[in-house]
Amino acid sequence: MAASGRTAPTPIMEPNPLDPSPDNIADIFELIEKHRLLEVVARNQETPRSALLEQLQHRQNLVELRKRLRTRHPADIAHLLELLPVADRLVVWRELPVPLAAQSLVQVSDGIRAALVSDTPRAALVDMLRELDADDLRYLSPWVPSDVIDAVVASLEATDRKWVEDEEGNRADTVGRLMTRELVSVKDGNTVAECLLTLRQCASLPEHLDRIFVVDARNVLVGAIELGPLVIAAPEEAVSSVMQRHPRAFVPSDDAHDVAQAFERYDLLSAPVVDERGKLIGRVTADVVVDFIRASADQDVLALAGLRKAENLFGPVLDSARNRWPWLAVNLATAFVASRVIGAFEAEIEQLVALAALMPIVASIGGNTGNQTVALVIRGLALDQLRAGNRWHLLRKELTVSLLNGALWGAVVGLFATLVYHSAALGAVMSGAVFMNLVVAACVGVLVPLGLHALDRDPAQGASVILTFATDSMGFFLFLALASAFLM
Amino acid sequence: MAASGRTAPTPIMEPNPLDPSPDNIADIFELIEKHRLLEVVARNQETPRSALLEQLQHRQNLVELRKRLRTRHPADIAHLLELLPVADRLVVWRELPVPLAAQSLVQVSDGIRAALVSDTPRAALVDMLRELDADDLRYLSPWVPSDVIDAVVASLEATDRKWVEDEEGNRADTVGRLMTRELVSVKDGNTVAECLLTLRQCASLPEHLDRIFVVDARNVLVGAIELGPLVIAAPEEAVSSVMQRHPRAFVPSDDAHDVAQAFERYDLLSAPVVDERGKLIGRVTADVVVDFIRASADQDVLALAGLRKAENLFGPVLDSARNRWPWLAVNLATAFVASRVIGAFEAEIEQLVALAALMPIVASIGGNTGNQTVALVIRGLALDQLRAGNRWHLLRKELTVSLLNGALWGAVVGLFATLVYHSAALGAVMSGAVFMNLVVAACVGVLVPLGLHALDRDPAQGASVILTFATDSMGFFLFLALASAFLM
Repeated sequence: MAASGRTAPTPIMEPNPLDPSPDNIADIFELIEKHRLLEVVARNQETPRSALLEQLQHRQNLVELRKRLRTRHPADIAHLLELLPVADRLVVWRELPVPLAAQSLVQVSDGIRAALVSDTPRAALVDMLRELDADDLRYLSPWVPSDVIDAVVASLEATDRKWVEDEEGNRADTVGRLMTRELVSVKDGNTVAECLLTLRQCASLPEHLDRIFVVDARNVLVGAIELGPLVIAAPEEAVSSVMQRHPRAFVPSDDAHDVAQAFERYDLLSAPVVDERGKLIGRVTADVVVDFIRASADQDVLALAGLRKAENLFGPVLDSARNRWPWLAVNLATAFVASRVIGAFEAEIEQLVALAALMPIVASIGGNTGNQTVALVIRGLALDQLRAGNRWHLLRKELTVSLLNGALWGAVVGLFATLVYHSAALGAVMSGAVFMNLVVAACVGVLVPLGLHALDRDPAQGASVILTFATDSMGFFLFLALASAFLM
Repeated sequence: MAASGRTAPTPIMEPNPLDPSPDNIADIFELIEKHRLLEVVARNQETPRSALLEQLQHRQNLVELRKRLRTRHPADIAHLLELLPVADRLVVWRELPVPLAAQSLVQVSDGIRAALVSDTPRAALVDMLRELDADDLRYLSPWVPSDVIDAVVASLEATDRKWVEDEEGNRADTVGRLMTRELVSVKDGNTVAECLLTLRQCASLPEHLDRIFVVDARNVLVGAIELGPLVIAAPEEAVSSVMQRHPRAFVPSDDAHDVAQAFERYDLLSAPVVDERGKLIGRVTADVVVDFIRASADQDVLALAGLRKAENLFGPVLDSARNRWPWLAVNLATAFVASRVIGAFEAEIEQLVALAALMPIVASIGGNTGNQTVALVIRGLALDQLRAGNRWHLLRKELTVSLLNGALWGAVVGLFATLVYHSAALGAVMSGAVFMNLVVAACVGVLVPLGLHALDRDPAQGASVILTFATDSMGFFLFLALASAFLM
């Protein structure tokens, strides 16, 4: 029976249509390229005879595409949908068999999902969603028009319907959004043999089952046991004597970031979810947590750059442009203010035009060091390393670093100005301005993310724009004011 | 036997010394604060009598600290070590029992680990490392002086010694660094009952065992089966008929990022590792992948800000200052160049000093939009969404967005300049410069991360500094050159 494994020298290299290899969508990619080309050719066709030929080829190409798509993992289809431009994406989307389309819709990233839902006719969407279980439906529900969800859940059992429609328990970034109800639990009076029997009697085992939970007569969670230790325990032993007592449990309203941190810190593969009375209602598995951690990290990178949300790389231009407006507007407003700071010193600049050439250096080095501090503080907050007790230490340390760097790089900049403009006085003013602006950058770099965090905002969102505002305005002001005092 | 669970109304709320709750280090934190205070008091003590009293209190405090530390999870100790300033960290480090110190050293972040190793006497370090298994020793080996490792591995068996000393297989960011040798494998001729027997005969089960692997007579991997399905399969069935064939396997030299992506995409809890001939040699588990994903994401945030490596938030000032120098130096060099661009137009600025006040706006808005593009491209690369086939689409889209935003925000900026300086010509020059600089920002924002990636560099490292150089210099140049052409 295991012959296939034995005869092949390197079985993992065997072509396997369901093998989730990172590159098994390259062939599909090619077919779509060809499809696009054929469409362009078809559009420019003049003689009917060659048009017929083209059509034939076109159809063959689509048949081949459909055949290949059918054998792929939904995660690969989702990935493919993400990296195709809009028109090509819709070609693939239309050729997918309904169950595969439904699974891919669950896997695809938020931006693309919204686009696909709005591009799918209502009836087709209902058919698609009927393929999914209650967990997946619940997950998709925020993206799907409520009348579609209503039509789909009408055929579900009452408990499933309630689960899908539970808006309160399905809020973004909560445990309720990450959890599944699929689990196996046993009573604390059971023996190990009875637990194994319970497992065998499951109609279908939940995916990613690394451990089962132990509850008391009122369904209150009292312990957990991994499948490995369960299998090797003596069959007549009581499960309560081999289980781990009081595993770390979460409630649906808990912050998803806390769960991610617990998984990261305590190396969990799954965690139980209980209600306020401690009754077992579900679990969170590591695969969902991996997706969440990845998505939050991406969010930080985007938020730091002043983007409101993850943008669909190949989505509509207007959506993309709009996504960038809010922080662009803030940036522009702050740039106007910085410009007015310079405007206040126009007399000095007219007198010594070198000031105009040198002032951006002061602003730039301040912005750069300040952003380094911002990144460190944001990371510290994400890792929960900054508490009331040690924030003062951080500020003191960043200030010391800025004094050191300010003295060093201030001297370098001053030397440059002295050499280029043959004026030691101008060099000294430059040095002083850089030194002071680095101190400003350190303070603002620490305080802005901490302040945003204290206000319950994402500390990354906009921190960089606010920081640059401070280092630009103060950089210009410090340099021009010092020049006005000592050089005029 | 299960009485404890039944009598407690909400067992998960019970105080549990080993409960890994995020806040169970708050009390320790307080004790250390007190310790620090007592030390200050002791130093300023004058009368011998009160000094004695203080000493007593001081010693009591340390005893209490030691008692509390002993009961905590190594991950919590590691977290505590990360958020303490250097002096306090060493107090905790010295009070830890040797086995707990050893486990914490494995868990702690890289920067702190290096500091702790250099602060620990050689003999104490050897004692500590003797507490660890070969996997942990291998993981720590890059941070520990080689003579210490030699002293510790001398007492190991030959295969363990080879495993720990395997520098080639233990390179950073490879599967070899993430893998463990601990696994359970069965022969493909076995029945399900024989597999369960193999499990029961293990001296100790590996941690995080979600599935076992099936190999042929030559130890070549042919399949895998999760423990759940194994338990519910009929005992007399052949394992080869219930196993999953050809699971996705990795070799030790594979890039760790590829593994992370596979775990994320295909929802894995573990993956087999094989050698070049397909022979099973180890596995990677989801908990290690979670740590890797988190660390890489942090790395991106820091690299974008121009920091070479993760910095110890409370580490020595000189180390921190140095960590910021390389990109600071690059930033300074590019700022000098931008300054010379302005210097070339000093005659024009002398003639119309408003140019000096307005030019930073052009540079600033270019930098802001360019950084938004950089963040999107870096994220697209991290998610493997950018391939040869669609990069052209991306550039075209970003250009279209920049044309749209350039027209819109260029008009806003032009209006501002017209109103403030009562000159429509100046406003028109401003608009034109902003429009063109946004196009520059879009091109550079797409091409720089793609270029760094093509050169096999981290696309985040320095992308922002290079981008700002382009948008600053070109912003100044475009604005001043247009002004020189149309306003003079």
